[in-house]
Amino acid sequence: MKPVKVGLLGLGTVGTGVVRIVEGHQEDLQSQVGSPIMIEKVLVQNKSKARNIAVSPDKLTEDPWEVIRHPEIDVIVEVMGGIANTKEYILEALSLGKHVVTANKDLMALHGPEILAKAHEHRCDVLYEASVAGGIPIIRTLVEGFSSDRITKIMGIVNGTTNYILTKMSQEGASYSDVLKEAQELGYAESDPTSDVEGLDAARKMTILATLGFRSNVALEDVSTQGISSVSKEDILYAKRLGYELKLLGIAESQDDQISVSVQPTMVRKTHPIASVNGVFNAVYVFGEAVGETMFYGAGAGELPTATSVVADLVAVVKNLKLGVNGKQGAVAYKEKKLKTDEQISSKYFLLLHVADRAGVLARITQAFADYEVSLESVLQQPNPNNPDAEIIIITHDASRAAIKKVLANFESLDVVYKVKSVYRVEG
Amino acid sequence: MKPVKVGLLGLGTVGTGVVRIVEGHQEDLQSQVGSPIMIEKVLVQNKSKARNIAVSPDKLTEDPWEVIRHPEIDVIVEVMGGIANTKEYILEALSLGKHVVTANKDLMALHGPEILAKAHEHRCDVLYEASVAGGIPIIRTLVEGFSSDRITKIMGIVNGTTNYILTKMSQEGASYSDVLKEAQELGYAESDPTSDVEGLDAARKMTILATLGFRSNVALEDVSTQGISSVSKEDILYAKRLGYELKLLGIAESQDDQISVSVQPTMVRKTHPIASVNGVFNAVYVFGEAVGETMFYGAGAGELPTATSVVADLVAVVKNLKLGVNGKQGAVAYKEKKLKTDEQISSKYFLLLHVADRAGVLARITQAFADYEVSLESVLQQPNPNNPDAEIIIITHDASRAAIKKVLANFESLDVVYKVKSVYRVEG
Repeated sequence: MKPVKVGLLGLGTVGTGVVRIVEGHQEDLQSQVGSPIMIEKVLVQNKSKARNIAVSPDKLTEDPWEVIRHPEIDVIVEVMGGIANTKEYILEALSLGKHVVTANKDLMALHGPEILAKAHEHRCDVLYEASVAGGIPIIRTLVEGFSSDRITKIMGIVNGTTNYILTKMSQEGASYSDVLKEAQELGYAESDPTSDVEGLDAARKMTILATLGFRSNVALEDVSTQGISSVSKEDILYAKRLGYELKLLGIAESQDDQISVSVQPTMVRKTHPIASVNGVFNAVYVFGEAVGETMFYGAGAGELPTATSVVADLVAVVKNLKLGVNGKQGAVAYKEKKLKTDEQISSKYFLLLHVADRAGVLARITQAFADYEVSLESVLQQPNPNNPDAEIIIITHDASRAAIKKVLANFESLDVVYKVKSVYRVEG
Repeated sequence: MKPVKVGLLGLGTVGTGVVRIVEGHQEDLQSQVGSPIMIEKVLVQNKSKARNIAVSPDKLTEDPWEVIRHPEIDVIVEVMGGIANTKEYILEALSLGKHVVTANKDLMALHGPEILAKAHEHRCDVLYEASVAGGIPIIRTLVEGFSSDRITKIMGIVNGTTNYILTKMSQEGASYSDVLKEAQELGYAESDPTSDVEGLDAARKMTILATLGFRSNVALEDVSTQGISSVSKEDILYAKRLGYELKLLGIAESQDDQISVSVQPTMVRKTHPIASVNGVFNAVYVFGEAVGETMFYGAGAGELPTATSVVADLVAVVKNLKLGVNGKQGAVAYKEKKLKTDEQISSKYFLLLHVADRAGVLARITQAFADYEVSLESVLQQPNPNNPDAEIIIITHDASRAAIKKVLANFESLDVVYKVKSVYRVEG
């Protein structure tokens, strides 16, 4: 049984987990694939750095090409992150006929089609289960589990940092800035949290999920993205009072092969299964025409959960190697992409308005909705405890994004509307 | 592109769904597998029966061998149910080199190893995703998604009928018999509900999940099984009052490769993700050493959800056909089975006792637990509104099944214990 040799790019959190699992579960892995799996070379930034895992020093290298061009290495596992360098390394590995497992959502969201085309050209596998929702095997589920179905909706809590922040705000009534600071101290948020809190990380993951779910090459720029940095305590308070939780949701929809993908803070009715996904956990809700409602829940990040998915992909590559069928994944995106217009994207909306507290105001505001044929599900007017204005909370029935934009533009010229405090999509 | 020809055994609920999906999604399926998939022959009980799906009459047959021995059929899809006949048909199909997709949990739970051995011998695929939890791709998840991990616990709500009954009892305070009657009227329960309500259906599914999760041939007789037919309104009321939901859970555990599998009504703490799985929905909670907590949720039965899984398996078989790698699934159960003894199976327990209402009773009862080193988490004594006895509710700390059995045996000889009303496992 000739061992399969693996080159590892990166020995950070996930890389360390990969080494632990490959070494710790070696016997199990061998039973499944029929030969040993050996980590032959590991790319690190600094060979002499102290590590909390023992890797033989002669396996470590600071030269990427020593790993990528190593003649005995069959599979490259990329867990170093970043885009420009990793793209170069992976394309070179593929052109040398080496298979690739990557956890790199940024790379796959931005350059997935190019990388998959190169893999196809050289009959290589590229697997990337760990790039979305760490420990949840959601890519396998979309590609294989639901190969027979037509998926019409994917809703994901795919960013643990923002879900942690929103959960804490909801459970403790705390402010965004206080919870962000706490999350940074606990290591749940980066010192520069932009990518997480502005929804960019989630948008990249939704690009990947929408491409696989709808079998059409969705690009990052197709994803309309809004983060959580302007979510207030009051928003969450009102959400809860009305029976909703506020979650940063990626939402991808397809009707008649027309697609929309977005990431935004969303009011989710508490009875919806995704509303109770709390803390750093991730979940992906998938609705298929035939299968109906499904949801997949688990850790979205972390050393061992993410490494579980990386090594599961490695097992799949090695099984393919034994069968001689690498590079036969087939086209993931065989449908032409057709994007919905703002007129075609429809949902309920929640609006919180600060308005003048005098007679006839509610009539004028509700007329503004009626002018664009947006009908209202519920309207609540109440005094604002903090200032002399009144607050109006409105939940609409299904309305197009275009109509809501027009209503909001119309409010600009209405003197009785002092401020549109919040506008959120509503689900469930 | 030569079409792949399929023989369908059974045109009931799931069979109808299979025809609908294969016909309705033909274009999508072709894009994935590279050739048409045609249903060539369909075994039915009565050719002249009126059906709510149009199948060309010359495809229907009442002779199973016309399907199984059809020279042009590559794949047999078995959705007729039953054990003796289907086993004979499937073994014959395999010996003729035909691949098999089945939704038959009873068959796979009872004769899985024999069928898989025959498949291996003839280099055929046998896939059975639909046999457990209908539309949830849990078998793929266990076998492929978590190939790299060591699964230590699987908890499943894998029977929709009993979950519907317990959900209704919990939400409406209704009695078991009333809800069962209603479920029968709605078609959620069979006229003879034994297999569902006594946990036998769940036990069969847990046999399959434990075998795949722990990679060891678990047999149906290894599953300790208790149903819900003696669950009372009071049990559920007390559960809720203490912060629990009562669910029929399949629980499979493995520590150091020592396995236990059981099905029983279980008190699940409300904060556990599986506690809020309601109605006819199914869910499987999987804990892996590396991946941690995960849960997979969806429809457990029904025409289209179950057919989704059947056709996804069909797609996988056809992909293998194109690659020429059928029958290479590898051994699912490569580990020797070691079962835990009652001394090694440990959990918390809930007990509801009717006892004499006089001084010293609580001391004698708690001493009975102490005698077998079972420590108590909480004890609640209250008057029984219906008779002059007192009620004692006890939740233990983790205790072995053996110790609890000894405590219960000891109660037989304690004159102050009138009745052990209920004993339930506690999780979460």
